Amino acid sequence: MNSYSKLSKNELQNEIEKLEKRYNAFKEQKLKLDMTRGKPCSEQLDMCMEILDIPSRELRKAADGTDTFNYGVLDGLPEAKELFAEMLDVDKSEVIIGGNSSLNLMYDAVARAMSLGILGSTPWSKLDRVKFLCPSPGYDRHFAICELLGIEMITIDMRQDGPDMDTVEKLVSEDDSIKGMWCVPKYSNPDGITYSDRVVDRIAALRPKAKDFRVFWDNAYCVHHLSDKPDELKNILTACKASGNDNMVYVFSSTSKISFPGAGIAAMAASVENLNGIRKSMTIQTIGHDKINQLRHVRYFKNLDGINLHMKKHASILKPKFDIVNEILEKELGGKEIASWNKPNGGYFISLNTLNNCAKEVEKLSLEAGVVLTKAGATYPYGKDPKDRNIRIAPTLPPVEELKKAIEIFCISIRLVSAKKFLEMA
Amino acid sequence: MNSYSKLSKNELQNEIEKLEKRYNAFKEQKLKLDMTRGKPCSEQLDMCMEILDIPSRELRKAADGTDTFNYGVLDGLPEAKELFAEMLDVDKSEVIIGGNSSLNLMYDAVARAMSLGILGSTPWSKLDRVKFLCPSPGYDRHFAICELLGIEMITIDMRQDGPDMDTVEKLVSEDDSIKGMWCVPKYSNPDGITYSDRVVDRIAALRPKAKDFRVFWDNAYCVHHLSDKPDELKNILTACKASGNDNMVYVFSSTSKISFPGAGIAAMAASVENLNGIRKSMTIQTIGHDKINQLRHVRYFKNLDGINLHMKKHASILKPKFDIVNEILEKELGGKEIASWNKPNGGYFISLNTLNNCAKEVEKLSLEAGVVLTKAGATYPYGKDPKDRNIRIAPTLPPVEELKKAIEIFCISIRLVSAKKFLEMA
Repeated sequence: MNSYSKLSKNELQNEIEKLEKRYNAFKEQKLKLDMTRGKPCSEQLDMCMEILDIPSRELRKAADGTDTFNYGVLDGLPEAKELFAEMLDVDKSEVIIGGNSSLNLMYDAVARAMSLGILGSTPWSKLDRVKFLCPSPGYDRHFAICELLGIEMITIDMRQDGPDMDTVEKLVSEDDSIKGMWCVPKYSNPDGITYSDRVVDRIAALRPKAKDFRVFWDNAYCVHHLSDKPDELKNILTACKASGNDNMVYVFSSTSKISFPGAGIAAMAASVENLNGIRKSMTIQTIGHDKINQLRHVRYFKNLDGINLHMKKHASILKPKFDIVNEILEKELGGKEIASWNKPNGGYFISLNTLNNCAKEVEKLSLEAGVVLTKAGATYPYGKDPKDRNIRIAPTLPPVEELKKAIEIFCISIRLVSAKKFLEMA
Repeated sequence: MNSYSKLSKNELQNEIEKLEKRYNAFKEQKLKLDMTRGKPCSEQLDMCMEILDIPSRELRKAADGTDTFNYGVLDGLPEAKELFAEMLDVDKSEVIIGGNSSLNLMYDAVARAMSLGILGSTPWSKLDRVKFLCPSPGYDRHFAICELLGIEMITIDMRQDGPDMDTVEKLVSEDDSIKGMWCVPKYSNPDGITYSDRVVDRIAALRPKAKDFRVFWDNAYCVHHLSDKPDELKNILTACKASGNDNMVYVFSSTSKISFPGAGIAAMAASVENLNGIRKSMTIQTIGHDKINQLRHVRYFKNLDGINLHMKKHASILKPKFDIVNEILEKELGGKEIASWNKPNGGYFISLNTLNNCAKEVEKLSLEAGVVLTKAGATYPYGKDPKDRNIRIAPTLPPVEELKKAIEIFCISIRLVSAKKFLEMA
């Protein structure tokens, strides 16, 4: 079929009529399909049951003799550090193990800088303005942390190889109120983009005016491949050291989408100096995190090979879902020039752009036919997409049959909104 | 034996000679006995193994159908709230479940008030001064939170029925920079005192000048009895409501010393309005805490009866240790008028006061003979005991034979330091 832009008024009217029939047929089914969040599906979680069936006697004693059942060990068991060190390709001295949530580690890292500063800098809360760079579309929960804590967000365009580095370089070198930058460098949320080596090198080589500027490197999807030819991400800690910027980056990760969302383990990687700074306040905040759960994960996965094997099983469940979404998008929207979308090699999302000023209307129409999408705008700071066009598709949770229906309804909604736009202009 | 104050110079010299012989005999054993922290002992933890052996299939589905293996449920499973509601004698709508650490909940509560204020008040970090009342001797980790976050601490004397309320009432009604007060109201750390009904009522009836004043009610030892006639603590939330102070208190508790220190569950109880205020930022900080561990605890303990039964088993292990300490203290120090100590009905500590200006010296002497005590002074703000006399004894962790030796060395140290004091003055 031709591009909508080339349809005549009559053709558009016909198209709308046909689409409305399909739309109403779905509406009558009174569906309730939730596509809001990047959650693993039930089958993925089924695979992890065994982690919880490791007998208690195997969970009590850590390799160094620590009784995991008692107090102690502020920043994680050595074997848990080793597991994350291997996964993140850093030294185990560069790892701190947290609780069940990397989001919480990130929140704490920002909140700590607000209250206490970083390595002796002025607490950010004592400054008139604090700003973060926010490559967008991006992860809404990152932006929410900034908003809650009163940090101004500056939107940075995402390109096909990562953030627009010309702008990033210029801004951080000129403005010492810019204290941070959010990055999801691999299979980014929502674009599924992996930063190129060139972009990683340029980030590592930044010369920020603020000495307490930190890159918040949320490597949430480091082992979450959907393809046999996974993307490769250059090691940011190594690149930072090569640039003499050893302290400039905080890396975050977790097993939330490897084992259990909400009952996995989170970790942070950074220079030893950064981690020592963090330990000083971490030791006041808690006596330590859940060592039994740490050991449970180490006993089950053993090493990176164990994790990779497990993630292949995840991919065998998720890949068909991503393929189905792509097929339906192609079939319904292909050639019409009303939407574009990414085909990621990993991660949890497909990012779709509608024509300008259509995303909110598409969200509304989909909702009325029973499909709840991530809120349009959520992928931008303050929930405001300047072009009102980006929608994050989260295909992982719904069963395949539901997913098919949801994406079909979503596509019909895009087509309806777009056809009506063109009709208005015709 | 007579009071040391009545011994002649000669008698004191003889006493010191005899004590030094005993002391040196211990010193030659090159012991390493750790009495620093209130940790459960190995046998207590053995009792909890079964909690971890509940099969995974019984941990997956919460009563309301929630898949505990996936994301969601910010503030705890309903059944976990019910368990804590029963334990703390509050409504389940007044409970939020946290992660593995009530200390972390307390830190977060203070840090949140610093960054964001409480229910619309000015963030404490924007004020010139913020002060907390610190009944002392008290819990060093409470004081450490204040010190880290730059909160001034005002020492309040602990009496036999709780904090000196005349001073508390006067100070909070006059000074609006006083924003908080730490309390361990039951089997207090370290005194083992339970606040009287009268004290609880006076706290509940405070008329603080600061509207955002909060009592941080750390009910860590609510079910940790050592006697068949446990102390009773008046319900602070109820008392606050009766005084029209519904929002004035945050209650904290956990299963750290019921199940696993570091792998239990923590909870907070407060008015619905307070909790709604907290949820607003909590939802930015985390997606939710470990629901699997919540369900594990609920499945095992079932209800308060289950917890109480379990705690009786704990008491059967701990009571003999407390008795031994008391016997040795009595035998070594009784009648000498050089030390006084409490005989608590529960909790984890025995608090001992030496003569003035002796505690640090006793700590040093004990250490040289291989007994590590909680740092003298740690039970006071800034680690400074104005009378240098309070020492916290933590008898729970060491095996009985070690405990006997440690307390004997400790007593010899007290006697030596005291005898030398009197000799100096003789």
